[in-house]
Amino acid sequence: MNERNERDDTSVYVGRRPTTNYVMAAMLILNQGKACTIKARGKAISHAVDVAEILRNRFMPEAKLQRIEIGTEVLESEDGRKSNVSSIEIVIAPK
Amino acid sequence: MNERNERDDTSVYVGRRPTTNYVMAAMLILNQGKACTIKARGKAISHAVDVAEILRNRFMPEAKLQRIEIGTEVLESEDGRKSNVSSIEIVIAPK
Repeated sequence: MNERNERDDTSVYVGRRPTTNYVMAAMLILNQGKACTIKARGKAISHAVDVAEILRNRFMPEAKLQRIEIGTEVLESEDGRKSNVSSIEIVIAPK
Repeated sequence: MNERNERDDTSVYVGRRPTTNYVMAAMLILNQGKACTIKARGKAISHAVDVAEILRNRFMPEAKLQRIEIGTEVLESEDGRKSNVSSIEIVIAPK
């Protein structure tokens, strides 16, 4: 994952909230003419793909799927144990 | 998703079995010099990304991530109701 963009304003971090929340957040970015990066880790990866698909199929058919990257991040729990978790980044461009 | 390749011998369909099963199945294909397509739908998408990442990071670092596609499939349940489900295809080449 591109750590540079970790908290920038063109990324949407997908977690456990309803899909529509993330779809709307992505639309806000795309409507500013910027490319939007949908990011998720672990079990939320499936959810991120749902967000991208619903966005493209239902709300913004003119948006373009620009790039999909997968990766592995190392998470450290409070007791110091490390575990690997998969991640995804889906970049969607406004046109 | 590419329906043509639905049941060919270079695809691995990721479901609920242990991750290692799918990693081994993918390795068998790659060791024949063929590209392998890791496929999943719905909640199994996260699992498919795990399979691809573990394969590349732990077992076959020389394998190349060639292409990732996401899509939407329409499933029809027994009572005739249709629902959309997201899908992923991750293509990995032997070198």
